[in-house]
Amino acid sequence: MTTSVTAPELDLLGIGNAIVDVLARAEDGFLAGHGMAKGTMTLIDAAVADRIYAAMGPGVESSGGSAANTCAVAAALGARVGFLGKVADDTLGTVFGHDIRAAGVRFPTAPLSGGAPTARCLILVTPDGQRTMNTFLGACVAFGPEDVDEAEVASAAVTYLEGYLFDPPAAQAAFRKAAKAAHGAGRQVSLTLSDPFCVGRHRAAFRAFVKEETDILFANEAELLSLYETDDFAAALAAVRQEVALAAVTRSEKGSVVVAGAETAQVKAVPTEVVDTTGAGDAYAAGFLAAHARGLALAECGRWGSVAAAEAISHFGARPQTDLKALVG
Amino acid sequence: MTTSVTAPELDLLGIGNAIVDVLARAEDGFLAGHGMAKGTMTLIDAAVADRIYAAMGPGVESSGGSAANTCAVAAALGARVGFLGKVADDTLGTVFGHDIRAAGVRFPTAPLSGGAPTARCLILVTPDGQRTMNTFLGACVAFGPEDVDEAEVASAAVTYLEGYLFDPPAAQAAFRKAAKAAHGAGRQVSLTLSDPFCVGRHRAAFRAFVKEETDILFANEAELLSLYETDDFAAALAAVRQEVALAAVTRSEKGSVVVAGAETAQVKAVPTEVVDTTGAGDAYAAGFLAAHARGLALAECGRWGSVAAAEAISHFGARPQTDLKALVG
Repeated sequence: MTTSVTAPELDLLGIGNAIVDVLARAEDGFLAGHGMAKGTMTLIDAAVADRIYAAMGPGVESSGGSAANTCAVAAALGARVGFLGKVADDTLGTVFGHDIRAAGVRFPTAPLSGGAPTARCLILVTPDGQRTMNTFLGACVAFGPEDVDEAEVASAAVTYLEGYLFDPPAAQAAFRKAAKAAHGAGRQVSLTLSDPFCVGRHRAAFRAFVKEETDILFANEAELLSLYETDDFAAALAAVRQEVALAAVTRSEKGSVVVAGAETAQVKAVPTEVVDTTGAGDAYAAGFLAAHARGLALAECGRWGSVAAAEAISHFGARPQTDLKALVG
Repeated sequence: MTTSVTAPELDLLGIGNAIVDVLARAEDGFLAGHGMAKGTMTLIDAAVADRIYAAMGPGVESSGGSAANTCAVAAALGARVGFLGKVADDTLGTVFGHDIRAAGVRFPTAPLSGGAPTARCLILVTPDGQRTMNTFLGACVAFGPEDVDEAEVASAAVTYLEGYLFDPPAAQAAFRKAAKAAHGAGRQVSLTLSDPFCVGRHRAAFRAFVKEETDILFANEAELLSLYETDDFAAALAAVRQEVALAAVTRSEKGSVVVAGAETAQVKAVPTEVVDTTGAGDAYAAGFLAAHARGLALAECGRWGSVAAAEAISHFGARPQTDLKALVG
């Protein structure tokens, strides 16, 4: 990695699917009746989205998207943040744009006109607090390399990519362009694996991208095991330690493990009542990266991640509802 | 009141403004800077709505509307409920319709085509949990007498009207038609005063409607004092006891007072952490009316009201997020 000649203007530039969440409570039987695998994300088309929406309970709409959630939380923790992602010029696109900008995040991507509508994710929250996601990508499939301004990428210390971007084909080209621009400017690239089934759909591409382009990796246990096709956590951790400079692996109530070369930090979870796990992983990455941008030690980065994740879990929806700066204080 | 010849098909038919709420946290200084009076509802036009939305923080969208909230909560408590109110045929109108039907409420009103958009209420929640509402009525002003089916009204034991309906002129004609149809069929009419400033805007009309058409009145202390232009709560309570058969007056953490002829029930509030008071009064009325539909005693009706109000206060947003039947059990 080369050293950048100018100080970064942004701590974090997120690139991800720009999605509005529709959250509703559901019983386990509803998931079974619709063939949903609890805790995972499934891509759906417009017709299936209409069918699930008609069947699901009263909803709450809230801006979402994995990397976008991370950006909103990192900004709430004082980081300087930008986000790239594609909405349509419709009502939900206006909502998404308002919310991310109101969170203090720079959001320059032009909305799509005359194409698919803004993406939505139908999220069913079961009584155990787990969320099961059904995503209609809509306008997100129009996000491509032309939406990545290399100067913007070069201005950010860390460019952060969500694994879900492996699904829309043009987005793969976009984030490869972004990774190249970031490394060309001496910046870092961070990736979150997002979902074990998403990893399964694109495993070879994930493996290559982790090894060749990723400086900071986020994953939960299931995703890491899926990446390395093993059921041995120690083996997966050893593999990722070899391949990336810094990896943070979350393990729900068991906390997280951060590995960086020979260094290992075991981080505790922050106990909280589990209302809805939507956005927990996104918030962990945000807390970690916001602390990392301040040059804090790995264990402290992990602690910020745990605090932000606990806040996300304690209420319905993915975006912060509390003064996060006070919580990490 | 005459006695109806047929058993009612519905326990409750609500008539009100069909609104989608946009909730955001705000500091007291934000309210002051925008000239908002904390805890009240202000009518705004589209331009002001755009200006406030641009300035306010990240939002959560959730179906609202005072009577509509009451209908959703009453249905959650097992009552048979219908709702009449006007949305537009746009995204937020679809959201409103989905949410109220998914709550189990019959919602037959035709959406407005080619006119104003679906109404929205920009709600600022301050750190003390109080909500301050800014309502753009949009399509609600198109709700008129033609939207009131007299047979529908005659099928409901109680027709419930929100005081906010005094604001859109055509709605006044609509709810007068509904009140006439209800009484003509031997049913009851219930009214909530909604807001002290709304009462102030239409005091003469409110006074006449309370005295001549209202069987069950809901009000909070400030609204009741505004109605009778007094600062003496005992005097206001004596006045309302003379004028309506049954009145329930809520007093925040002091609980509520229910008066019916010579009978008086003092009802305690259910203690809870105050996160957001949006919908507390609506939920109280719902709990009360759902219990009333079961023929429960006044004190028990009040207790159901207190339980439902406490649930509403304990989270962000007006619609229930918990199994209310279990809570009143």
